[in-house]
Amino acid sequence: MNSFGRIFRISIFGESHGECVGIAIDGCPAGLSLIPEDLLPDLERRKGGKQKGTTPRQEEDCPIFKSGIFNGKTTGFPITILFENKNTRSEDYNKQRSIPRPGHADWVAHQKFGGNEDYRGGGHFSARLTTGIVAAGAIAKKLMNEISIHAEVTEIAGEKDLEKGLQKAIDAKDSVGGIIECRVTGLPVGLGEPYFDSIESGLSHILFAIPAVKGVEFGAGFAAAKMFGSQHNDAIESMEGKTRTNHAGGIVGGISNGNELVFRLAVKPTSSTPKEQNSLNWDTGKTEDFSIKGRHDLCVALRAPVIVEAVTALVLADFMLLEQKIKRIQ
Amino acid sequence: MNSFGRIFRISIFGESHGECVGIAIDGCPAGLSLIPEDLLPDLERRKGGKQKGTTPRQEEDCPIFKSGIFNGKTTGFPITILFENKNTRSEDYNKQRSIPRPGHADWVAHQKFGGNEDYRGGGHFSARLTTGIVAAGAIAKKLMNEISIHAEVTEIAGEKDLEKGLQKAIDAKDSVGGIIECRVTGLPVGLGEPYFDSIESGLSHILFAIPAVKGVEFGAGFAAAKMFGSQHNDAIESMEGKTRTNHAGGIVGGISNGNELVFRLAVKPTSSTPKEQNSLNWDTGKTEDFSIKGRHDLCVALRAPVIVEAVTALVLADFMLLEQKIKRIQ
Amino acid sequence: MNSFGRIFRISIFGESHGECVGIAIDGCPAGLSLIPEDLLPDLERRKGGKQKGTTPRQEEDCPIFKSGIFNGKTTGFPITILFENKNTRSEDYNKQRSIPRPGHADWVAHQKFGGNEDYRGGGHFSARLTTGIVAAGAIAKKLMNEISIHAEVTEIAGEKDLEKGLQKAIDAKDSVGGIIECRVTGLPVGLGEPYFDSIESGLSHILFAIPAVKGVEFGAGFAAAKMFGSQHNDAIESMEGKTRTNHAGGIVGGISNGNELVFRLAVKPTSSTPKEQNSLNWDTGKTEDFSIKGRHDLCVALRAPVIVEAVTALVLADFMLLEQKIKRIQ
Amino acid sequence: MNSFGRIFRISIFGESHGECVGIAIDGCPAGLSLIPEDLLPDLERRKGGKQKGTTPRQEEDCPIFKSGIFNGKTTGFPITILFENKNTRSEDYNKQRSIPRPGHADWVAHQKFGGNEDYRGGGHFSARLTTGIVAAGAIAKKLMNEISIHAEVTEIAGEKDLEKGLQKAIDAKDSVGGIIECRVTGLPVGLGEPYFDSIESGLSHILFAIPAVKGVEFGAGFAAAKMFGSQHNDAIESMEGKTRTNHAGGIVGGISNGNELVFRLAVKPTSSTPKEQNSLNWDTGKTEDFSIKGRHDLCVALRAPVIVEAVTALVLADFMLLEQKIKRIQ
Repeated sequence: MNSFGRIFRISIFGESHGECVGIAIDGCPAGLSLIPEDLLPDLERRKGGKQKGTTPRQEEDCPIFKSGIFNGKTTGFPITILFENKNTRSEDYNKQRSIPRPGHADWVAHQKFGGNEDYRGGGHFSARLTTGIVAAGAIAKKLMNEISIHAEVTEIAGEKDLEKGLQKAIDAKDSVGGIIECRVTGLPVGLGEPYFDSIESGLSHILFAIPAVKGVEFGAGFAAAKMFGSQHNDAIESMEGKTRTNHAGGIVGGISNGNELVFRLAVKPTSSTPKEQNSLNWDTGKTEDFSIKGRHDLCVALRAPVIVEAVTALVLADFMLLEQKIKRIQ
Repeated sequence: MNSFGRIFRISIFGESHGECVGIAIDGCPAGLSLIPEDLLPDLERRKGGKQKGTTPRQEEDCPIFKSGIFNGKTTGFPITILFENKNTRSEDYNKQRSIPRPGHADWVAHQKFGGNEDYRGGGHFSARLTTGIVAAGAIAKKLMNEISIHAEVTEIAGEKDLEKGLQKAIDAKDSVGGIIECRVTGLPVGLGEPYFDSIESGLSHILFAIPAVKGVEFGAGFAAAKMFGSQHNDAIESMEGKTRTNHAGGIVGGISNGNELVFRLAVKPTSSTPKEQNSLNWDTGKTEDFSIKGRHDLCVALRAPVIVEAVTALVLADFMLLEQKIKRIQ
Repeated sequence: MNSFGRIFRISIFGESHGECVGIAIDGCPAGLSLIPEDLLPDLERRKGGKQKGTTPRQEEDCPIFKSGIFNGKTTGFPITILFENKNTRSEDYNKQRSIPRPGHADWVAHQKFGGNEDYRGGGHFSARLTTGIVAAGAIAKKLMNEISIHAEVTEIAGEKDLEKGLQKAIDAKDSVGGIIECRVTGLPVGLGEPYFDSIESGLSHILFAIPAVKGVEFGAGFAAAKMFGSQHNDAIESMEGKTRTNHAGGIVGGISNGNELVFRLAVKPTSSTPKEQNSLNWDTGKTEDFSIKGRHDLCVALRAPVIVEAVTALVLADFMLLEQKIKRIQ
Repeated sequence: MNSFGRIFRISIFGESHGECVGIAIDGCPAGLSLIPEDLLPDLERRKGGKQKGTTPRQEEDCPIFKSGIFNGKTTGFPITILFENKNTRSEDYNKQRSIPRPGHADWVAHQKFGGNEDYRGGGHFSARLTTGIVAAGAIAKKLMNEISIHAEVTEIAGEKDLEKGLQKAIDAKDSVGGIIECRVTGLPVGLGEPYFDSIESGLSHILFAIPAVKGVEFGAGFAAAKMFGSQHNDAIESMEGKTRTNHAGGIVGGISNGNELVFRLAVKPTSSTPKEQNSLNWDTGKTEDFSIKGRHDLCVALRAPVIVEAVTALVLADFMLLEQKIKRIQ
């Protein structure tokens, strides 16, 4: 399914080199002021070509509202937003067809969909689909203006000095991975449930839906595995639940405890590396050397923080509506 | 919600010191041979007291089938399994009530449920609820006998020599965390979808439902963030999709690629450490020193591998049924 | 799936002649006072043998709470209720096996489940499964004490004089059908949505889940098809939405309009008629005359009103929670 | 939610006088040949102005494929279809605003959405939203070419002679209701489940999602309530499950029995009658006489058969995929 959410529910559609990509958002309360300009700052952050190491492919990413808005406000019915694809170069991909690109979904998509997949630019698998998600995330953020969500790249190619990490990629003529950290403040106490609707379950579900994410950890995360209990436990200091440390990352028993929500993601290196590779040629049945053409990011982590913020906002809005912390009419 | 799954769906219920814990399993195909003995090996692995570092509380964990089985086979209707709670010592918890235990859900549960929570032994939050999950997992494994799922602890307290890691805890009179790795072979190519129904999304969702799990990574995981693209990409070597390396952990674009599925979890140290702690006393509004009584694991990771296998089996059975790789009648 | 509901969600399990039938109720707010005695009046109404024309099989129908209740209140976690089967006579059904009973699910169950179905007393298909539903409905009613739900049989065997209708059955030594009408007052304005989450959609979905229901109509229902628009339209008379007539049955555009909610159900005659029948014998492949043994209702509609009330309460509680008209903590 | 379906899932969006209406269809198998022309015959049947008694508003209803199709085949990813609104006359509705139209959702929508609703032409409540549903239904029909679904109007204004019924409306200068009957042949045995996923539950859920439907009955339906059991029971005659009569309408225990699936719907008279009405004026708080302007159907049942076929196809395709009767790749 290409939908996510229980009450605040998104459905994505479209292909990288098709006519458009888009999203339908169902369950947004009525009466929220919303104009296309509200979405532009986040859409701008997602765009390539704005910073060193990102793809020179630039789309206008102008959100076209197709439904659900009336007189500048949400109606309570599905909000559909389209983004036209204009700046496509499908010929880059046609040339590449005989060798399924390593790290990409070419081979599995072909197996799964029996050759019916739209392979141009990755088709539906393309990170271009995250445009709609970023738009929906901006709406979710607007719904929860008392909550602040901030994600940023904290490490590139193993370097905390990001400039240095990127230079590594440029020097090696290769792509690199990175770490993104997200922090959320203003979350009410008591959001989430133990087990299947834990905040960690909901968030990790959609964080792993972001292409290239291969790891997610909350609070101390993997470092917790090396700690003693007495060291990891966050002592409560106040009747409001403020803890001395925050190794739990703001979630205990799957439920928000009122402290800062903190988590990190591992983003793998861009699969489309400029470096020469060796892999299977479908037509010959043998491996061969080849190079990926097209316009790509050296480090996909660079454009991902706004996507991480968006999916975080979507999950939290869903929990907030379900648990009656957001009203059905704004 | 205390349910999980789309086609193969589990619902858990019960409390640690209530009358029982249990599970209802809906969507299991008809005609699968099933007797209580089929569940015992996995239930045995989950039990405490069997190995150094686990709680001396021992329940018989005898699965009582209440529905869905007829003449030793599944009927296609919900299978309900109960586990009676016999060996409870609630008085240990009553003494402790004035200080919400750090690392536990005591404080958030109280806030969320307005004081109506069953606090004895953690109530519904207790890891005892995983008994039903392990039983359901054993059924899911039986459904997929061509698939092999194996999880094990690979690190305790930062030590790959597990004996040594556990000794650290015993010496420090403290609890410790650990790492669990799970490997799945025999998975068909093409399971899963990009985005919200990726294998990573489905698995992480339920892995983070296991109490004490704070990190999940697939394949190279967090290490991928430090790699170059040319290094991380798994070159395809054969027409069957066999890759030279397996940094992707068997999943590309959210879809299984026929290679081994590999992932790791970070398990935090047992919150109930034997060490003295300092935290808020609800009655006085001030922090104070105290010690946790009761019977607890020094390292919860030790009993978790079979739970990890169970939830993995549950998710995979759900995908296999949805994608028509398992027949509705066995 | 044997589950229903989005926020207030029930899962049923069990078989007529198995060990028990039961229900798990997830999503019930915490803090609702609840003791087994609260469920007895409705369970009593569902029982057979209390009135002329109902089955002499009598079960104690004593609800056994297995989870989700602590100190006489709901905890916010799943409430599991079991009903033991004690008074079973499976031998009646064994004799009958060679001829799939007309009107019953014997034949389709055999085809669908490949012979693995528990055929004794209809197994999971038995109306005995509605015991759990009635219990859950009683809880839902308690949650919404400002809403009154009342269902009653208004017609038996085509007679509005019910005594007369039943006498028809007794005289003919046959079973008969009936009509049930349900009226709900106190419902807030604005519940429901157009299209797939209309009140009509939600209610009809679960009303048709009741065995033997073959028709559902709201307000004027089928009579509306014979009316003129000017006659059918309910003119609004007050700013509170009070209408002059109520042909819409309290629902417009799928949404409650504050007037009485009114609907009717057609219940088919009990399939297990005492009359001799002629149907296929599986063993011979030929039709033959036979008679149904066992203890059965002459008119299943007689015991159904409390079931209709229960499912109505379940659907409305779900809408009320989703639309934030019921608080998460009582 | 504006979505329906478990595996074959539709999401509708748009407003009557907004820019467009549309639908996203998720879960359609890959490899199905699909061009816009495939949808035209059914879209044509839904259109107004083609037959006596339907609205003169005519839209081109040209389906614009936005995603999910590649090289004339479905890709397995969401198919999005838009229909532009061109022929709108919103001024008709602005004049009408002070009196919420009886039978319409004006008053409830205003209460529920706090005045944020798009009231023009009924906004999202408009039957124009069924355009997308008809398109999706045509795709579902294509998927199941061995199944035949046929719906037709069998009664208008109480008359089986449809011409005569319509004349009644014309003579009375009023709108009228009608009955639609739908018959499905070719359905496999064993589709559906008892209780919440019965064929009756699934179908009635979406049938009541069609605006103006106020009653649904299967097989003998309401007439069954007047019958004896020996008369209503469908005797099985052959090993393939063929029954002598078909009072059950092809469904027993919620499951298809291989006989013709038969059901009927009651459609209320068009709310927008040309006749003068008397109802509340919001501005004055008093009732007054008024007439509805705009272009409307005298009998909405006339255009509904193709919508009934569409939703039937959608539900059946969902069951067929879930129960593995349709392959994931065509």
